Amino acid sequence: MTVSALPTIRFLQQPSSSAWVEQALANLDTILLDHSHCERKAAGVALNLMFRYPSSAKLVRMLTAIAQEELQHFEQVNQILEQRGIPLAPLVPPPYGATLNKQIRRDEPNRMLDTLLVSGLIEARSHERLGLLAQHCSDQELAKFYRALMASEARHYGIYWTLADTYFERSLLTQRLEELAEIESNILSTLHPHPRIHS
Amino acid sequence: MTVSALPTIRFLQQPSSSAWVEQALANLDTILLDHSHCERKAAGVALNLMFRYPSSAKLVRMLTAIAQEELQHFEQVNQILEQRGIPLAPLVPPPYGATLNKQIRRDEPNRMLDTLLVSGLIEARSHERLGLLAQHCSDQELAKFYRALMASEARHYGIYWTLADTYFERSLLTQRLEELAEIESNILSTLHPHPRIHS
Repeated sequence: MTVSALPTIRFLQQPSSSAWVEQALANLDTILLDHSHCERKAAGVALNLMFRYPSSAKLVRMLTAIAQEELQHFEQVNQILEQRGIPLAPLVPPPYGATLNKQIRRDEPNRMLDTLLVSGLIEARSHERLGLLAQHCSDQELAKFYRALMASEARHYGIYWTLADTYFERSLLTQRLEELAEIESNILSTLHPHPRIHS
Repeated sequence: MTVSALPTIRFLQQPSSSAWVEQALANLDTILLDHSHCERKAAGVALNLMFRYPSSAKLVRMLTAIAQEELQHFEQVNQILEQRGIPLAPLVPPPYGATLNKQIRRDEPNRMLDTLLVSGLIEARSHERLGLLAQHCSDQELAKFYRALMASEARHYGIYWTLADTYFERSLLTQRLEELAEIESNILSTLHPHPRIHS
């Protein structure tokens, strides 16, 4: 049961289910709050990579730009939360991120490759899901906001792909991406009971 | 042996020595590279605080702004490094940061108070030292750059102070600040042999 008329997202093996869209639309306040956490976490991921590979000039330059954009989005989501009287609060994350992180091999350079690919997959999925919210959300302000953001997410997964392609052989890259993309789609094949961007 | 005509920096108990200024001016390439690391670390500190206290709206709002500025500065320093043909590279940090972090008590709310005050002290010292570089550096491009940045560092330590003052009693705050400021000045009273922003 998949949502029709989905744009083709390079990287993603399976599109999101309509069950996720229904869950998200029925819980927009929680989705907004989770989205705030996602933007902060995405900035953290980019920054951590810059800490781990401080000599890789291209990586540092491109991820500085990503971290800046994620912080901008974090600020924008938080403004919307404030306007709507939704207080900032911690949220138990869905298993998505932790399960994907477990796939990251610990030995270098595999660690770098896997981290770039996993980060790219998460951005790709965020792009797809924000696109679905933009398409199906009846709240026009939110729909417009999601539409504006999904273009950035698309650029971000392109950047993670470009970086992986800079530092690794194309054949190695595509094979590992296929493995990870299958796992990524599998995690989401069962809807998590708590509404989240990646439930 | 202290540098004359230093501006009074609230927070700092002792001004930097002229020995540090001499060491820095004799090693500007290393100082620039270390400055790049400092800006990235400062963004990391702000982001980590936002991760730790996600419900503190004022803290999140103010530290988002700081993290964004630090990343901008990081980008600017890295551009200067590139123009000068200085490659990005890891640098062994001076004991300054680790020694200060050891002062942070692990129990809340002391941990929050100490983290805000230590972060403020580091920003205050950075402000003072970038000011010294702006004043004494004969390279006009660098002097101008440091002058532009020191205003931000001043704002940042003001923000950390404001946040500490938001969440804690003034008397508690000033007493703990005095203790930490003494330790901060003590660490720097002996010049570290490797030239760094905080050597």
